[in-house]
Amino acid sequence: MWYFDNDYLEGAHPEILRRLAETNLEQTPGYGEDDYSKSAREKIRVACDCPDADIYFTAGGTQTNALVIDSLLHSYEGVISARTGHVNAHESGAIEFTGHKVLPLPQYQGRISASDLSAYLAGFWKDENREHMVFPGMVYISHPTEYGTLYTKDELSALSGICRTYRIPLYLDGARLGYGLMSRRTDVTLPDIAKYCDVFYIGGTKVGALFGEAIVFTRRNTPAHFTALLKQHGALLAKGRMLGLQFDTLFTGGLYFQISAHAIDMAERLKDMFVRKGYELFMDSPTNQQFIILENSFIERLREEVSFSYWEPLDEHRSVVRFATSWATTAEQLDALERLI
Amino acid sequence: MWYFDNDYLEGAHPEILRRLAETNLEQTPGYGEDDYSKSAREKIRVACDCPDADIYFTAGGTQTNALVIDSLLHSYEGVISARTGHVNAHESGAIEFTGHKVLPLPQYQGRISASDLSAYLAGFWKDENREHMVFPGMVYISHPTEYGTLYTKDELSALSGICRTYRIPLYLDGARLGYGLMSRRTDVTLPDIAKYCDVFYIGGTKVGALFGEAIVFTRRNTPAHFTALLKQHGALLAKGRMLGLQFDTLFTGGLYFQISAHAIDMAERLKDMFVRKGYELFMDSPTNQQFIILENSFIERLREEVSFSYWEPLDEHRSVVRFATSWATTAEQLDALERLI
Amino acid sequence: MWYFDNDYLEGAHPEILRRLAETNLEQTPGYGEDDYSKSAREKIRVACDCPDADIYFTAGGTQTNALVIDSLLHSYEGVISARTGHVNAHESGAIEFTGHKVLPLPQYQGRISASDLSAYLAGFWKDENREHMVFPGMVYISHPTEYGTLYTKDELSALSGICRTYRIPLYLDGARLGYGLMSRRTDVTLPDIAKYCDVFYIGGTKVGALFGEAIVFTRRNTPAHFTALLKQHGALLAKGRMLGLQFDTLFTGGLYFQISAHAIDMAERLKDMFVRKGYELFMDSPTNQQFIILENSFIERLREEVSFSYWEPLDEHRSVVRFATSWATTAEQLDALERLI
Amino acid sequence: MWYFDNDYLEGAHPEILRRLAETNLEQTPGYGEDDYSKSAREKIRVACDCPDADIYFTAGGTQTNALVIDSLLHSYEGVISARTGHVNAHESGAIEFTGHKVLPLPQYQGRISASDLSAYLAGFWKDENREHMVFPGMVYISHPTEYGTLYTKDELSALSGICRTYRIPLYLDGARLGYGLMSRRTDVTLPDIAKYCDVFYIGGTKVGALFGEAIVFTRRNTPAHFTALLKQHGALLAKGRMLGLQFDTLFTGGLYFQISAHAIDMAERLKDMFVRKGYELFMDSPTNQQFIILENSFIERLREEVSFSYWEPLDEHRSVVRFATSWATTAEQLDALERLI
Repeated sequence: MWYFDNDYLEGAHPEILRRLAETNLEQTPGYGEDDYSKSAREKIRVACDCPDADIYFTAGGTQTNALVIDSLLHSYEGVISARTGHVNAHESGAIEFTGHKVLPLPQYQGRISASDLSAYLAGFWKDENREHMVFPGMVYISHPTEYGTLYTKDELSALSGICRTYRIPLYLDGARLGYGLMSRRTDVTLPDIAKYCDVFYIGGTKVGALFGEAIVFTRRNTPAHFTALLKQHGALLAKGRMLGLQFDTLFTGGLYFQISAHAIDMAERLKDMFVRKGYELFMDSPTNQQFIILENSFIERLREEVSFSYWEPLDEHRSVVRFATSWATTAEQLDALERLI
Repeated sequence: MWYFDNDYLEGAHPEILRRLAETNLEQTPGYGEDDYSKSAREKIRVACDCPDADIYFTAGGTQTNALVIDSLLHSYEGVISARTGHVNAHESGAIEFTGHKVLPLPQYQGRISASDLSAYLAGFWKDENREHMVFPGMVYISHPTEYGTLYTKDELSALSGICRTYRIPLYLDGARLGYGLMSRRTDVTLPDIAKYCDVFYIGGTKVGALFGEAIVFTRRNTPAHFTALLKQHGALLAKGRMLGLQFDTLFTGGLYFQISAHAIDMAERLKDMFVRKGYELFMDSPTNQQFIILENSFIERLREEVSFSYWEPLDEHRSVVRFATSWATTAEQLDALERLI
Repeated sequence: MWYFDNDYLEGAHPEILRRLAETNLEQTPGYGEDDYSKSAREKIRVACDCPDADIYFTAGGTQTNALVIDSLLHSYEGVISARTGHVNAHESGAIEFTGHKVLPLPQYQGRISASDLSAYLAGFWKDENREHMVFPGMVYISHPTEYGTLYTKDELSALSGICRTYRIPLYLDGARLGYGLMSRRTDVTLPDIAKYCDVFYIGGTKVGALFGEAIVFTRRNTPAHFTALLKQHGALLAKGRMLGLQFDTLFTGGLYFQISAHAIDMAERLKDMFVRKGYELFMDSPTNQQFIILENSFIERLREEVSFSYWEPLDEHRSVVRFATSWATTAEQLDALERLI
Repeated sequence: MWYFDNDYLEGAHPEILRRLAETNLEQTPGYGEDDYSKSAREKIRVACDCPDADIYFTAGGTQTNALVIDSLLHSYEGVISARTGHVNAHESGAIEFTGHKVLPLPQYQGRISASDLSAYLAGFWKDENREHMVFPGMVYISHPTEYGTLYTKDELSALSGICRTYRIPLYLDGARLGYGLMSRRTDVTLPDIAKYCDVFYIGGTKVGALFGEAIVFTRRNTPAHFTALLKQHGALLAKGRMLGLQFDTLFTGGLYFQISAHAIDMAERLKDMFVRKGYELFMDSPTNQQFIILENSFIERLREEVSFSYWEPLDEHRSVVRFATSWATTAEQLDALERLI
């Protein structure tokens, strides 16, 4: 069986395991106060070209989203998101669990538009009943989005500008950030993200780590007593070095970017394979998730030897399916897939 | 510098790292549906002599406590705990964050007594104003407690009997469970715990794992849709196999018990060292945390070469300090300490 | 100045004030245990033809919605509502404040459709990722809706049938229930509502009371310890008799229905006035809220002497405005309005 | 039957009913924007000698406590209270429901001491683990307390000083404030309370109103968008004038103080009656709640003709009971009681 279901099928990049083994019996303080975490923070600051950045490590994406959003919002505020945003659709209500509404905007292949955002905010502030409504207190975007799409630098800049006009933070969910940055069709760099966003996270779980995400506050805007908030949310890992060491490894020698670029190479080859063989793309994704249109009967047959994600029905006979590559995808896996399609 | 601050100073037992490396590039489904997690669950069921047990893996203790307690309580209920219970004192209000009050009982070296519990519950149900009070909906104990003490089998049985009379679950926080089970002064086995408790967790973070805890529901009493609750609490790890594999390793060939017994051996030797040299014990702890009385001036000097925890002042000149051993403590470390005291 | 802004401009029906004065110095137990509350409950049971109904009194609508929804949902569940439902749009996030997501459906003049509901629920239960989504645990409708529209008996029956198929409660927000029941274009009676809904509330604040709503659980489905939940939500009035006495008055001799019918008469006359004078209706509302299309310039002039609600812009020159009547609207007020339009 | 159970047995002071009737058909804007609410605010500002005060009206005490405490605390903070404080003991966990821990201090007849408070705060800020603890973010006191006792001006001043040193608000629950202010043994005035507290509420429900409390923020410290917070907590009354008009009446011509003084007169006479007849006081309460020690057998007999509150057992044969007077207590009632004891 060959697997293309998602980008968290394997363990971690071998270099991470090597360093975990190498440092295993060292004794370090807990809760992220260790030297590996400090070193990782410094390397991320450099990579972001953001010397002021405050950086915290957490174990997973949903935890991170709930923590960041709840920490930055007032009680009377909600977070704006694309209707298809992970926080609105696939986190079991983790945001509402912390007391905040997700305010949905229309989505365009997973993205929100600056004009919709602007209209929404203007409309809210013109509404005389706004004290009976949920205040828009933050904007959440994912990059890459849940559809593998990307914002351009201009789009990011526009969203950022609107947020700064209304004095609300722009938060970017970078669960797959590496795959976005290494796309062949992006003009957005990590320093751009640090520049335009007030807070974002660099995904490790899906990009080479065993697990872990790095939250980056870019403007000296970390909420007071953020360590207590981490603890209260159940997100403060005792052996914080596990997270620090992994990010230190990923941000040493550009490893994070290299393995992300590899996943993109694999995704582009996968897409080409399908196109060359006459299959239709549902959309031309620039990142590591590829959405292909297949006959339902073929899906059934293919599933006997290949595992992938069913996305949604297209018409009576055809459906959209998703193939994901990752840092761990091999040429051998693609060769096998090629023979089967 | 020699460290005795706590039991999460190092990484993981080497066998865990070996198996992580060995299985690293295998592809597995996420969220705990993988075979390693299944195998770990089966081994834990056997170790608990509890074939019906439902088992879930989480990343850390505070997260686990908040999840279990919130999932099992009704909105109008709180959880009874010793005043010194971790959930009452050192989790940044994580329980209250989920909407529930911690109802404190007196503590005796970290333990609650059956008679206090019984009196509290009887008092509540006799109170005509109880609809204006927080209903006691669960009992939380830690074993070992925050003071390293243990319940006897009779004590556990008594608490369990009271809980069953009042039809509320007994929940045991086993962050250091291995060190409790391998104490030289306990008559409580893992099957006893499974028998007397409705739910408990087996601590991995402090007992040989990189991180991770195993929640055990013992009576087919898992809350409905517990996976959704895990997700909502930000406690569902994408690569669930990381947790499964670690517990599979710890429960293969009795490793969990062996490494716990080692920590106890080290703790007993440490205690003997202090006693032999004429130091006074604050209490005679049966587990891996030892509480010693030291002169304040000596504390200062010792800290130049040894790191340990300050617990509390005793009188004008003396204080209580804590030395913790763990699965990773070495004879060499104790030798060094011995030379210094 | 003549006011048509809403249906809570005045105090209470004089008979309520009379009885408050008459009984003022009687001494009664608190928290709804008094005889007036008991009598009111019995009269409401009769009016609903629902002898099993459990009835509780609260002070206001938002409080009631948050309490009922939070009490009936599990933590992992949300409530389905029309996008324009009061709970989704105009309660400052009170539902999310209790931890639950509002799951929006398309709205048709404020109503949801059985087919949308059915499709949503079927889609959810077919989705393999549903453990990562918010479970639909309840359906919220308002009747009359925020647009003054009404469900037919067949529509109510269809919604109810779907809810019972999926074993989730149907909850009806009856903030303006009297005006719905006394509409000239409805086939829905109070016993129908008790039959099709699992829980609903009878609005007092907007229908003749000083303040107050009556929650009706129709199927012996009151959440356990509901008094404690009322208290926890800050919704348990010390002098519960204030609420009981008001509802006892409203449900004595059919007062609630008579004063509601009066408001409908006034609303129909108001609508006729506008139609006769050539104004266009935005929609032909069957209840006490009337939506008229006016020239913006005329709106400005009219506002110098009449107060009403701005609803939304229609085109460049025209807007939709709302005129509300109530139990207290007088012929004199309508005469005055007629002269001005 | 004669009732002395509590101070919310009757309706409202007749003058309140008179004004409700007199203004009943006036049309006013909702949500506290009406002129009666404005007038009431102005009169309260004068009575408090606090021209900057922001004032909001709510329906009941538990609602008020949850709202004020949640609005002023950060997520990582809890509220300090006497163990017997209403928020800790008798509000069904309404504070925890909003996510905050109540941090209990020892109580002395319902009061906390400045030295305990000081020690607690100093201890917290010295604790190196404080990021794992709940931050003390506010101090809650009741005045009169749940035991009818009062703080002296010096005590209030000391508590206030400590709070200001630590920059946390002092919040006073004045559910029975009138009875405290009119006690014959107090040196605390309403302007004193406004001076020493950052926020407090003036109780109406127990002091002459049908229902209602007035929240007073004394230092331009109202949380941003407090109206939205009121709405979110379900505490924003549509017909806000009901509350405004009642407080306007109570603060016209000193009515609030006169009726409070009457209750104190009645309480003192009641106490004297018991003392003269040889009964023992449990404590010499300075306010409207009197705590008497009675033989259990006598309690049983007396209860056939008089209703009062059972407080707690004293010894095998005797118990503490509570008799409450109020603005509505009459000499006739006391005469009847006197004949029976």
